[in-house]
Amino acid sequence: MSNNNATSVPEAYPMNGGDGIYSYTKNSSYQRAAANVAKTLIDEAIAEKLDIEDFSSASSNAFRIADLGCSVGPNTFACVQNIMEAVKQKYGSHMPDFHVFFNDHAANDFNTLFATLPPERHYFAAGVPGSFHGRLFPEASIHFAHSSYATHWLSKLPEEVTNKNSPAWNKGKIYYTTSPDQVSNAFAAQFRTDMAIFLEARAKELVAGGMMVLIMQTIPDGIHQSRIPTGIMFDFLGSILMEIAKEGLISEEEVDAFNIPVYTTTPNEMAELVERNGSFSIVKMESTSPWLKVGHTVNNTQQRLARELRAGMEGVFKTHFGSDIVNQVFDRLNDKSGQLINQLESSHRQGTQLFLALKRK
Amino acid sequence: MSNNNATSVPEAYPMNGGDGIYSYTKNSSYQRAAANVAKTLIDEAIAEKLDIEDFSSASSNAFRIADLGCSVGPNTFACVQNIMEAVKQKYGSHMPDFHVFFNDHAANDFNTLFATLPPERHYFAAGVPGSFHGRLFPEASIHFAHSSYATHWLSKLPEEVTNKNSPAWNKGKIYYTTSPDQVSNAFAAQFRTDMAIFLEARAKELVAGGMMVLIMQTIPDGIHQSRIPTGIMFDFLGSILMEIAKEGLISEEEVDAFNIPVYTTTPNEMAELVERNGSFSIVKMESTSPWLKVGHTVNNTQQRLARELRAGMEGVFKTHFGSDIVNQVFDRLNDKSGQLINQLESSHRQGTQLFLALKRK
Repeated sequence: MSNNNATSVPEAYPMNGGDGIYSYTKNSSYQRAAANVAKTLIDEAIAEKLDIEDFSSASSNAFRIADLGCSVGPNTFACVQNIMEAVKQKYGSHMPDFHVFFNDHAANDFNTLFATLPPERHYFAAGVPGSFHGRLFPEASIHFAHSSYATHWLSKLPEEVTNKNSPAWNKGKIYYTTSPDQVSNAFAAQFRTDMAIFLEARAKELVAGGMMVLIMQTIPDGIHQSRIPTGIMFDFLGSILMEIAKEGLISEEEVDAFNIPVYTTTPNEMAELVERNGSFSIVKMESTSPWLKVGHTVNNTQQRLARELRAGMEGVFKTHFGSDIVNQVFDRLNDKSGQLINQLESSHRQGTQLFLALKRK
Repeated sequence: MSNNNATSVPEAYPMNGGDGIYSYTKNSSYQRAAANVAKTLIDEAIAEKLDIEDFSSASSNAFRIADLGCSVGPNTFACVQNIMEAVKQKYGSHMPDFHVFFNDHAANDFNTLFATLPPERHYFAAGVPGSFHGRLFPEASIHFAHSSYATHWLSKLPEEVTNKNSPAWNKGKIYYTTSPDQVSNAFAAQFRTDMAIFLEARAKELVAGGMMVLIMQTIPDGIHQSRIPTGIMFDFLGSILMEIAKEGLISEEEVDAFNIPVYTTTPNEMAELVERNGSFSIVKMESTSPWLKVGHTVNNTQQRLARELRAGMEGVFKTHFGSDIVNQVFDRLNDKSGQLINQLESSHRQGTQLFLALKRK
């Protein structure tokens, strides 16, 4: 596979491709559990709030669905199927053809995505390469946009957190949730910029009356960010990196220069960003708790937690540290997964998933 | 690269992916020369015959272009750019956004296609995996469809040509152009079935007034098929395979069981198939002679001819014979390319490319 862009697009960190032991395809059960929690909410939002009459102004021969940050499946296929069934249930035989757009960075493994498309699908499929922090579709062409566990990725790392001379320098850490306020403010500022661009692009692309569902990490307003479960996991990976640095295999400077470009928003913050954009009304906003549902499984299978973390995060580590170190990091994670699970006991597991259904005004 | 479908979709023979020495990306100058011949014709057809008023019934926020059988570039990008410029030249600032769909089999290397998309493009891009011998797009959603050097590939080999007990058995050969009539009739029948399905699918997908341009191999009516240049090349590859079989490295039965699923139509035959379909009017039909323009280059660079033939045809050979034999075949082709060029002297090089512009009634 030749992918010359992988190095020239540093902001793209695809999930692991293919279907091997560490592939995202085989290690995305947390995301799947999360999607199941969201399914009922999507069904309700479509049944109660989708108003096909609104589409008449953009008379179209197709109902267009976009999944933004789809990765390589299988979750995206299940999710799209869901949406289609909910729409069909509401409108029955009056539906035009469905056209489904699977979007992710150009570095995503689209070959695997296309090879595993459900053969019996009742929709026309297309892949759309590119960052959703920018335009992807023609004006007023999408009827339903969906994005699950993707919009908490930042478009890039805020520069100041790896700058020695900045008060936001995140020394000795790879994540912000237990760092000084300056660091966490830098992450938050980048997220707000990104989300403003994201919402502006989608506002142009969605037809009037079109819906958008976002599912992303969240932490309830008022709970301290140090209790975010992914934060605890990333800090744990950070401590493994520092351990490797102390052994001399990498330098501490290399660790200092690395941060995971993911941000966990709060419901209030998202509501404020949507309001500031002005093009969408909030149809439904709800925090759910998939961690409580998968928690039991996680405790029983420490190796699975390590594998799933690897499938989702290996790409971002590899770009910075190279394959050898990444293998070390995740081998050590595997050995210490019991310890990580203990640390996760202090995490706040309630209301960690934000479900947000928006309607284009 | 994991592509589980490669074996389960025997009718898909992608051009060589990646950007290595035998890649289609680096070895498609014949197809590029052919595209240049077609450029002027496309420009004229759009300038004279495209009627944007016809689109008003399907009021749309995008002008949708599809390239069917796009392979991995760069030709498809140049071609799409062409079409866009011709359309813009005619309609100026009244154009909506362009949405471009790059279609090929799911086994095509879409990762390379997406990684090499022109960064400065003025259109929204999508990849569409699947056979164009079937539906790919929603009803009445495409404004301009284009297909260059793809529709002469058959959807599958007619079974009888590899069946010992059939009068159409093509013993000792891998192509039909110097074979008995029964063999060539079987190829023709498959082509007519395929083209009927192709035209029916496109008739559903194109908006009323939409245009479709097909560029494909042809031979003028009245010229014997044994003089088709690609036929001479394929027969030459067939004789190399028989040579290898005589040396005992493969069996003659293996050669008998293999035929290249490509057919060269005539202008009259295509006109008849379009008329039988009934949904399109022929806007322009012209045979051009790209072989005359590249002939000079070909004579000067025998190695290039061997390399380009390999980039386009290696896939179909590999599926049947495996990599080792394929390397032998093309190494021998390389050594004997002078001999092949001599045989090509007897080919009919005039009017070998059919340009067909159709308008959806």
